[in-house]
Amino acid sequence: MAPSERSDQDLSKSNFDVDYVIHYEIPPTATAEAEAAFIQLITALSSTGFTTEVRRGRKPSSLLIFTKLASPNLLRNQVYRARVQDWLYGVRPDAPAKITAEGESEESEPITPAERLRVAYLLITRPKDEGGAGVSPANVASSSPGVSPAYNRFVKSIFAPHDKAFNRTWLAKWTSKYQPDDNDLSEIRDQFGEKVALYFAFLREYSRFLLFPAAFGFAAWLLLGPYSWVYAVVNALWGVVFFEYWKVREEDLAVSWGVRGVGRIQHPRPQFKWEREGIDPVTGQVVKVYSPVKRFLRQLLQIPFAAACVVALGGVIVSCFAIEIFITEVYNGPFKQYLTFLPTIILTIFNPTFTALLTILAERLTELENYETQDAHMASFVQKIFVINFITSYLGIFLTAFVYVPFAKVLVPYLDIFQFTVQKFTPEGVALPTKSWEINPDRLTKQVIYFTVTAQIVNLAMEVIMPWAKRKAFKTVEKVQAERNNEKPIETQFKDDPQEAEFLERIRDEAELEEYDVTIDYREMVIQFGYLSLFSVVWPLTAISFIINNWIEARSDAVKIITHCQRPIPWRSDTIGPWLRSLGFLSWLGSITSSALVFLFHHHHGGAHIDDYSPWDIPFWALLLTIMFAEHVYLGVQIVVRGVLRKVVETPGLEKERAERFALRKMFERTGGVGG
Amino acid sequence: MAPSERSDQDLSKSNFDVDYVIHYEIPPTATAEAEAAFIQLITALSSTGFTTEVRRGRKPSSLLIFTKLASPNLLRNQVYRARVQDWLYGVRPDAPAKITAEGESEESEPITPAERLRVAYLLITRPKDEGGAGVSPANVASSSPGVSPAYNRFVKSIFAPHDKAFNRTWLAKWTSKYQPDDNDLSEIRDQFGEKVALYFAFLREYSRFLLFPAAFGFAAWLLLGPYSWVYAVVNALWGVVFFEYWKVREEDLAVSWGVRGVGRIQHPRPQFKWEREGIDPVTGQVVKVYSPVKRFLRQLLQIPFAAACVVALGGVIVSCFAIEIFITEVYNGPFKQYLTFLPTIILTIFNPTFTALLTILAERLTELENYETQDAHMASFVQKIFVINFITSYLGIFLTAFVYVPFAKVLVPYLDIFQFTVQKFTPEGVALPTKSWEINPDRLTKQVIYFTVTAQIVNLAMEVIMPWAKRKAFKTVEKVQAERNNEKPIETQFKDDPQEAEFLERIRDEAELEEYDVTIDYREMVIQFGYLSLFSVVWPLTAISFIINNWIEARSDAVKIITHCQRPIPWRSDTIGPWLRSLGFLSWLGSITSSALVFLFHHHHGGAHIDDYSPWDIPFWALLLTIMFAEHVYLGVQIVVRGVLRKVVETPGLEKERAERFALRKMFERTGGVGG
Repeated sequence: MAPSERSDQDLSKSNFDVDYVIHYEIPPTATAEAEAAFIQLITALSSTGFTTEVRRGRKPSSLLIFTKLASPNLLRNQVYRARVQDWLYGVRPDAPAKITAEGESEESEPITPAERLRVAYLLITRPKDEGGAGVSPANVASSSPGVSPAYNRFVKSIFAPHDKAFNRTWLAKWTSKYQPDDNDLSEIRDQFGEKVALYFAFLREYSRFLLFPAAFGFAAWLLLGPYSWVYAVVNALWGVVFFEYWKVREEDLAVSWGVRGVGRIQHPRPQFKWEREGIDPVTGQVVKVYSPVKRFLRQLLQIPFAAACVVALGGVIVSCFAIEIFITEVYNGPFKQYLTFLPTIILTIFNPTFTALLTILAERLTELENYETQDAHMASFVQKIFVINFITSYLGIFLTAFVYVPFAKVLVPYLDIFQFTVQKFTPEGVALPTKSWEINPDRLTKQVIYFTVTAQIVNLAMEVIMPWAKRKAFKTVEKVQAERNNEKPIETQFKDDPQEAEFLERIRDEAELEEYDVTIDYREMVIQFGYLSLFSVVWPLTAISFIINNWIEARSDAVKIITHCQRPIPWRSDTIGPWLRSLGFLSWLGSITSSALVFLFHHHHGGAHIDDYSPWDIPFWALLLTIMFAEHVYLGVQIVVRGVLRKVVETPGLEKERAERFALRKMFERTGGVGG
Repeated sequence: MAPSERSDQDLSKSNFDVDYVIHYEIPPTATAEAEAAFIQLITALSSTGFTTEVRRGRKPSSLLIFTKLASPNLLRNQVYRARVQDWLYGVRPDAPAKITAEGESEESEPITPAERLRVAYLLITRPKDEGGAGVSPANVASSSPGVSPAYNRFVKSIFAPHDKAFNRTWLAKWTSKYQPDDNDLSEIRDQFGEKVALYFAFLREYSRFLLFPAAFGFAAWLLLGPYSWVYAVVNALWGVVFFEYWKVREEDLAVSWGVRGVGRIQHPRPQFKWEREGIDPVTGQVVKVYSPVKRFLRQLLQIPFAAACVVALGGVIVSCFAIEIFITEVYNGPFKQYLTFLPTIILTIFNPTFTALLTILAERLTELENYETQDAHMASFVQKIFVINFITSYLGIFLTAFVYVPFAKVLVPYLDIFQFTVQKFTPEGVALPTKSWEINPDRLTKQVIYFTVTAQIVNLAMEVIMPWAKRKAFKTVEKVQAERNNEKPIETQFKDDPQEAEFLERIRDEAELEEYDVTIDYREMVIQFGYLSLFSVVWPLTAISFIINNWIEARSDAVKIITHCQRPIPWRSDTIGPWLRSLGFLSWLGSITSSALVFLFHHHHGGAHIDDYSPWDIPFWALLLTIMFAEHVYLGVQIVVRGVLRKVVETPGLEKERAERFALRKMFERTGGVGG
């Protein structure tokens, strides 16, 4: 694998100019088949325009195919085609300049690493009849027989090697400043694509915006205490402003990155199963059709799915709730100080497990809905993920705030069953020490603090440590297995060329890594925003905790991308998409919960008299009226804020576009039109 | 005025190929000035490229300037420029073909009368430094000194002569079919521009949609009776579907008419008063600036304005209400059968008067807000108009439904004051016959029927008869005045050329007509939609009345445009604009009022026991809960309907655009891109 002569960048040398690595696995059960398919794969790649070199993988049964676009000309052509397509879809306003062999156009519009990699990836994965090599990993490839080439059964993954030099600089930069500036974002964009860069942009704007509720929340905590309607109003207003601001900022970023409307260029899902082929009445093209009625019926499965989520996750939460109440407020026996942690432990174990299981179910369901495009698939998946996370994250607090405390008096008799049970299981005559049960007024606050501080820290730790631990464990297991089978370590059987050895070792590591999924990171931030919007009136310091968390989060996300994940395929995106709707929903719901919390607890947060509290004391109509009033004021304010922000927010991208359009018009007014 | 030689259309001959008539009035107080300005005006017109001929007007002091674009070349250039501008603003997807002298491009994209007139109008009205003649009527022209040319003080109006032949065919067509088809709309569009055509398109779609609630309403009236929740749900759903359907249809129409995004080409308001000139930081252009803070402060005047509306119109309504209750339900004296009509008469007189006054006030206020563009001005004006009409149209019913009936028992003692007063003003000892007062359960129904049937008929009659009567009266007054002054009728002093005489008489008539304002017609339809959405649950036959009304309305609107108004300037438009928001608002509010009406009256519409009804019987929380539930279901359903309709509704315009885009892409894929 000699470094290409043309390469003048020192950085890329360390990757030997490799564009993509295809991880090929030969199962012992189908060696002949896999080997035949392997030759087809290599042929397909080289006839598409890739040079390939093959090295062994970590396991004896796996191979690594290193591919590289053979000629700079091919690259230029592909980039030009992609740019023309952008133009035809209205993504870029003007036709692209032809890229000559001398790379003239590259001066004004250079080909970024992300663009190169995206184009190469599309070329590798595009179906053969559309001029690609038709490669896609087995778990993604179409399962319809005869559609996907045979070799795809054995392709484990396709990934680009990490650019170590870039990664090192990036990490170094992160540690030296509070927030990335536009330049940093632009570098992320050039390296990992707009989709990843947009996440970091969102994280930056969100963290910036958090400064206000952090400062105001601190002041409110000092001066107003919890359940202050002033805090609730300001907080809701902040939520609206942030939401509307992000919508403007997002569009502006999309324009300045030249990706606005990129959603119109849809990537077909290879897994899509069509029922029949039809003719598009408009374009006359042959299209693959799947009955929308069938899909709709399958979409209806979301209702039992949501119910299942409520039952499964709600069950865990309610059980923990009951255990917790019992232990902290009724039980008074031995090991109490340790048992107090039991509910937290149960939650920490069961919640992620159930969430993971339900996420898999959500994936299956979305698969079943059988969307034609990646975007539609993703949007539907995100919706389900949001339902799961909404329940795991907020249901507990909802129960405490709107069931446990207000209905305390009604619940007391039922909770006495605990004492009864405890007494029954102790030797007769020996009375187990129990406390008489009373409602704990601080419970709600404690719970909010748990979710907004403790859970965030746990989460962060899991995110960083888990993948590392998992990998370590996995390696150890493999080693032990190999030793038990008396295999010699593979390294001693075949020696790598010393020039390549280090690089190959690194790629073998990267081949084991997971794909980076930006959805998970968005989810965290959106759920976090939800705590702030829905419940921070209970504990106004919430935002301070989030600021600290997000400072670390930004860095740990960078570390995750660099060390725990394969280099992301540099997809483009002009919006945070379905998460936007979730943000808007949470912000709106916040107006309801905050007003209800203030109304219910404002006069009672002294705590002393909370056990006199019963739902019958609350004028229910007054609560409803408060909620309705708050909600409608919220909706009204939202309209106003939307109108004002559009005018106030600085939008360099949109301004630039306006300037360009203006210049174009001026030119035409001067030259065109008035001639003939 | 010889008919142009090039004219090959017989129809236009009757107008002697005149594009626009400028009505010029020489006031006796400033004859010299007006005459000097007149010469300037003629010079400005001819240097812009118009040929002009002058004839006397009806009054001796008025002149009619007949203008015509001098050369076909100029027209072609101007049309081409306008089309290029459309392209640069993204209104049309592709650059226009050059229009050669042989009119080659006209084959595929002929210049419609509307296009010709629009271009000519813009040329006449554009400021001189932008290449126009800078003419605008005195009431529209800028009042800043030195900005508007001197002659504008004397310009009364600028209008295009009606195309009699077209008008005759149009009217004949209307009488022969229930609804205009796409061809008819296209003809209206070619004649009067997209703005007017869009109104007729809206009217058509709305009337079509009315068929469903008419049929369903009839069935509900027969089988379910009033205050049926089934009817309320179906009606709300219908409202949502119509609203969302229209949004899709509107966009589709805009695309197939080639006007989507035409709102981006803003027409500056000549009346706009700027404070200073600044430099646009983006384009480097000199722009006229008006402080947005000042404008915002002036916009705040809308709040006292709305309050004034409520007080003035609400006052009239409440008084009528009180008088009506007194007469129909307390008073039992002489002339009762005539006095019953008193409130209706008062309402019919005062409501339009106050509305007219408040509309003038609204106009002043909008003027004061000093918008830079016509669209912004119009949007703000429409908003105020909507507030006025909302109050005049719905407040009465709101009062009956949510104050009079539910709070009857509370109000009874206060209403006894009537009896007391009556007794006081009669000769002592003679007891005036009075009835004992009780709440009339049918009042609400009667009122809804009044507004949805009687008021619609009155309104229609006013619209058709009033302008005709006004003109008749005006002419008679003028004649009498002239006779008294012993003036000879002007006709006998100067004789018209017999060839032109008929045409000139017609134009003199047209010069007296009002400008057509599509806003008024939209307003009627939107308010009508409101009755259906808000109150039709009281009387499910509402939609039947509206269908009949709208059948006549469509024809009377056509008659209005043809005979009561000057030919409209053929402006373009891609949306019903601010009215869309009003429709959405009314549809949403309908979910609230309907649910409240059903909840309050469902069990009581027997009527016999309604006088036992008091607000204390209603569980207020249940009412609130019902409203909240209905509203949120409404909002949820709206999201679903929006998603589904986008896929289901046929959109020929959008399909065609897609086909064209597809063809373009195919072409590029075949030829471009893979060359170099």
